[in-house]
Amino acid sequence: MSRVAELLARERPRPAFDILRAAHAELLVTDLDAAEEFYVERLGLVATARLGRALYLRGWEEHLHHSLVLRQAAEPAVGHIAFRVREDADLTALGKAFAALGCDWRWEEGERGQGPGLRVLDPFGFPLEFFREMDVVEPLTQAFHLQRGAPVMRFDHVNLHVTNVERALEHWLDLGFRCSEYISTDAPEERVTGAWALRKSTVHDLALTAGRGPRLHHVGLYVAEPLGVIRACDQLASAGLAGCIERGPGRHGVSNAFFVYLRDPDGHRVELYACDYYTGDPDRPPIRWSTTDPSCRSFWGARAPDSWYEESSTLLDLDGRPVPVADADVEERSHLMA
Amino acid sequence: MSRVAELLARERPRPAFDILRAAHAELLVTDLDAAEEFYVERLGLVATARLGRALYLRGWEEHLHHSLVLRQAAEPAVGHIAFRVREDADLTALGKAFAALGCDWRWEEGERGQGPGLRVLDPFGFPLEFFREMDVVEPLTQAFHLQRGAPVMRFDHVNLHVTNVERALEHWLDLGFRCSEYISTDAPEERVTGAWALRKSTVHDLALTAGRGPRLHHVGLYVAEPLGVIRACDQLASAGLAGCIERGPGRHGVSNAFFVYLRDPDGHRVELYACDYYTGDPDRPPIRWSTTDPSCRSFWGARAPDSWYEESSTLLDLDGRPVPVADADVEERSHLMA
Amino acid sequence: MSRVAELLARERPRPAFDILRAAHAELLVTDLDAAEEFYVERLGLVATARLGRALYLRGWEEHLHHSLVLRQAAEPAVGHIAFRVREDADLTALGKAFAALGCDWRWEEGERGQGPGLRVLDPFGFPLEFFREMDVVEPLTQAFHLQRGAPVMRFDHVNLHVTNVERALEHWLDLGFRCSEYISTDAPEERVTGAWALRKSTVHDLALTAGRGPRLHHVGLYVAEPLGVIRACDQLASAGLAGCIERGPGRHGVSNAFFVYLRDPDGHRVELYACDYYTGDPDRPPIRWSTTDPSCRSFWGARAPDSWYEESSTLLDLDGRPVPVADADVEERSHLMA
Amino acid sequence: MSRVAELLARERPRPAFDILRAAHAELLVTDLDAAEEFYVERLGLVATARLGRALYLRGWEEHLHHSLVLRQAAEPAVGHIAFRVREDADLTALGKAFAALGCDWRWEEGERGQGPGLRVLDPFGFPLEFFREMDVVEPLTQAFHLQRGAPVMRFDHVNLHVTNVERALEHWLDLGFRCSEYISTDAPEERVTGAWALRKSTVHDLALTAGRGPRLHHVGLYVAEPLGVIRACDQLASAGLAGCIERGPGRHGVSNAFFVYLRDPDGHRVELYACDYYTGDPDRPPIRWSTTDPSCRSFWGARAPDSWYEESSTLLDLDGRPVPVADADVEERSHLMA
Repeated sequence: MSRVAELLARERPRPAFDILRAAHAELLVTDLDAAEEFYVERLGLVATARLGRALYLRGWEEHLHHSLVLRQAAEPAVGHIAFRVREDADLTALGKAFAALGCDWRWEEGERGQGPGLRVLDPFGFPLEFFREMDVVEPLTQAFHLQRGAPVMRFDHVNLHVTNVERALEHWLDLGFRCSEYISTDAPEERVTGAWALRKSTVHDLALTAGRGPRLHHVGLYVAEPLGVIRACDQLASAGLAGCIERGPGRHGVSNAFFVYLRDPDGHRVELYACDYYTGDPDRPPIRWSTTDPSCRSFWGARAPDSWYEESSTLLDLDGRPVPVADADVEERSHLMA
Repeated sequence: MSRVAELLARERPRPAFDILRAAHAELLVTDLDAAEEFYVERLGLVATARLGRALYLRGWEEHLHHSLVLRQAAEPAVGHIAFRVREDADLTALGKAFAALGCDWRWEEGERGQGPGLRVLDPFGFPLEFFREMDVVEPLTQAFHLQRGAPVMRFDHVNLHVTNVERALEHWLDLGFRCSEYISTDAPEERVTGAWALRKSTVHDLALTAGRGPRLHHVGLYVAEPLGVIRACDQLASAGLAGCIERGPGRHGVSNAFFVYLRDPDGHRVELYACDYYTGDPDRPPIRWSTTDPSCRSFWGARAPDSWYEESSTLLDLDGRPVPVADADVEERSHLMA
Repeated sequence: MSRVAELLARERPRPAFDILRAAHAELLVTDLDAAEEFYVERLGLVATARLGRALYLRGWEEHLHHSLVLRQAAEPAVGHIAFRVREDADLTALGKAFAALGCDWRWEEGERGQGPGLRVLDPFGFPLEFFREMDVVEPLTQAFHLQRGAPVMRFDHVNLHVTNVERALEHWLDLGFRCSEYISTDAPEERVTGAWALRKSTVHDLALTAGRGPRLHHVGLYVAEPLGVIRACDQLASAGLAGCIERGPGRHGVSNAFFVYLRDPDGHRVELYACDYYTGDPDRPPIRWSTTDPSCRSFWGARAPDSWYEESSTLLDLDGRPVPVADADVEERSHLMA
Repeated sequence: MSRVAELLARERPRPAFDILRAAHAELLVTDLDAAEEFYVERLGLVATARLGRALYLRGWEEHLHHSLVLRQAAEPAVGHIAFRVREDADLTALGKAFAALGCDWRWEEGERGQGPGLRVLDPFGFPLEFFREMDVVEPLTQAFHLQRGAPVMRFDHVNLHVTNVERALEHWLDLGFRCSEYISTDAPEERVTGAWALRKSTVHDLALTAGRGPRLHHVGLYVAEPLGVIRACDQLASAGLAGCIERGPGRHGVSNAFFVYLRDPDGHRVELYACDYYTGDPDRPPIRWSTTDPSCRSFWGARAPDSWYEESSTLLDLDGRPVPVADADVEERSHLMA
């Protein structure tokens, strides 16, 4: 068993808290009207509320108040990345766990439509929120005649740029996540350049990508079917927004998703993501992909553009200051090119 | 070679005119607002113009002013069924041909967006129009962000209830149509209960169905793909119009179309029709289906409801009076049931 | 809050075991070759093994040895319905729980590719199996060039005919299931005629349908997308098996699934099921549908055929004897028809 | 009216012959087994016959013996490109017309499953065949259970690399073709870098692309729907042939097609092509795209790779010698890049 396989197979104590899933992100944008046009008019997300400088969005099938918060700001950045927990007690337990790791934390009470959020700056520099309570709203799953844009059903995952995937992965495994797939350089060195980790029964709630970090690589939105991804591209292009299509559409090797990567008007990256598979059984073996196999990133062989590897959204710490970044210690592209 | 196969294979003189295709229908409706909601809001047809008591509609990819005219009236009925010709001279030649058959005819000059129309009451009682000139408008084929409802791309065909399919079919073959498929009872009697005839290179511009007639059984609208048919059903149902879905969705044996039959608020039947195949080569052999084979009407075996066989739209003659009807001399359902 | 809403909202103690999901069914068939043609050649399930009188099948994305066992027998019947648990200790705990309910149980060790199964005859007469261990095999998720038939990705659920849905539902809620949707007659009487209950994060692992029971109404297989359901129908029909299509394709109101119901050569009912939605958050409110609303069973309004309400597969008890059945005390169809 | 628009609008005498459509191509391949694996096993074309050194293929819905001939040879090349005519007399008339242009011609009688072919080397160096008679075979349109690979329904078009698009286009217009769309540099110079011309009622039977020529840029095969294109990519990739995917999938601005470009084992380019629109009405105005508009080639903005502009298949003249090539006098890419 390889070093990485051993890391993944290692028994870990069950955490004292139960994280349900990745739940939302707060993106700071410099032009809220332009962002609304992109996310609501073009992609078809549903606006639950627009209140002053914030816009609260959700997918068609979601029953909670929001899964994306866009907030007007002077510079584009990521305010926080949120995970939902099962019970209120999980929040206290998580607070203790992060405090034990020496992390900054505080309670956020003021977010619209939502109960108290535990905000932490995690050991890798990510501004996270854990919450349980959120207003329940009516899904639009079957309000077919009201649906516009692409069938964006729900928030699916976040992808994080980290300088060392293995260390970040261990941390998330300790929080109760399980690894579904990973990309690593070949033995003997075997360095992980990408890892997909889950709480809900899909391929991931969170992906870790080797790169200049900590930064948010993208948020992933689940689209009902591959044709929905194509429809999104067509509608963006006919509305004059073809320039926001960065990569794809295509098939991922990892996750089997049919995807497209978009850049919103502030450069935040959004993945529209269809297909996926069920991962709820704990013995489903993690799938390893070699960095020498181009099909891991693009099953049909097309290379991701450099921007996709290099560009990411800046994070803000709990005081609203940009989180400093550093280069990764391993480079996936050079292996893919080899 | 059977009697019917012989009828189809018989050499006929090339007509003195060139009919391009079935092009539009004029439906009289009792509530133009309700019809607009059905056709525009729900199905997604594009309104080129609404002028007083008439609404002019077209499909997303059409470059002509209209392919469906809805006109406010006291009773639901069919004003006329239109075919486009290649050249103006074709209209004169058609006028002569129908006059030679003893048919009433006149010129209609006043239709919005359209040049002169030759109106005839054909030998079987159908109010037909032949025209060449129509205003050219901008298609919405690639205005993806403006598209609403289902992807209804274009007017495809009309289906006519006739009391004797063979006689009507011979007439249309004489007009230059070719038969792509037909349903007949088994030998020795062999009676045709349905026939599909074409000018453009699809399975049909015109279908003939044995039944109480002459009446208009339905107009067929071409939808870009099977999922478009499903989307139409979903949107109709969520808007409270599930009751207008009469039959399907399903696969036709004849034509290989993926279809659904709807009834508009006045009971006019509309088929949404996807798939089809290319028929432009003159030697493509007509396909015969036996009335004893349930797959001809429904490839998956479901029976059409009685209403689908029995109900149809009343025709108006050139003076606006209802065209008298009679029963067919052969009954398809009893054979299908046998 | 209505009586049923109260029943669903009631706090229950967390069970001492963790059932992951509905996992497989054992169907007794009278002609294993015919069954193999239906399930493997036509539907596209993958045969992991055929051993003497048993055939072990799985969906394209499944990593376990089987999710359907077909076993040659003199009469069609259901051998057992299986649920997977998280840990071996869950089996012991379940054994105790069922023993406390006075149920027959025994250990089954001999099933191919699988560890020990706890077999019980539950209080309602259903032969259940709980198991943890099963051989891990290679999924075919991305072996696209080997895939045949329809994209049946995985076993999704079972639907059980029970004489009293409310009592059965309470039992399954006690086992840790949650109710996602239900159909009930209107107040004041409010009787439940259908309920959908889940462990994994989909609409259901198990549906309860009022009817002559206990019997197995159907097994549900998850298909990747609506077009996969259509492809299955086309392939069945062209292979001469249109007669096995009992109901649909169509859209369910409940669950939002795009479905078709098939009958295998022995009459066992199989649902091909696409779409669904995420249900993993514990506060997603159960959706109530009234029996007077035809859209609950068929969003587009078509009525289910009588056979769909009346026919079901016979269960065998732990000794292989048919489980006696009785009529339900409430009838959904009469309300739907009202 | 611009110079090019004037060229397109100009009245031309109706030709003395009636070309139905582009019908097939003969590709010389260096490894017939490898070609068979690619076209039959992977893409799903139907093999009508394999005879010694030649393989005759057709799409699922085609009723003629072949629409692609693969022939074993020492070097990859194009043997001929074939068009079907309506009547035998059209062949004689075409022979006269090409003789009048000073072109070499001869009769080819020996092709399997086919009547006499008029072979000409056209004024631009393309080895063409015109034929009328071909064996009629059974389509597989509804033999769903026998279909493998992607839904390649029929041969659609050829795309020719020519050094001067305008001159070639005029020639084809004289043969009775009509232009549906074109790409040109902006005024005042206005040079055409691409043109699409049709006989059947689709966007094209023949496209002309400015480039080193005369060469065959690609053959276009019509696929039933966008998902069919995606399925083809998935199946090629899982079978280890991802390297043959050259460009796409994506949406063309011109033609609205959803496409992918593949390279067969000998480098011949094949386009899988879905969507399209109806063009049978003679007054549908040609659509002009500017070379400065990147959406003409890729509606979503992705640039075609250089290989797509530069590489093409060598033609053989009537004596089997390679046709000499020259560079084009206008370069599209530099305008697109501007």
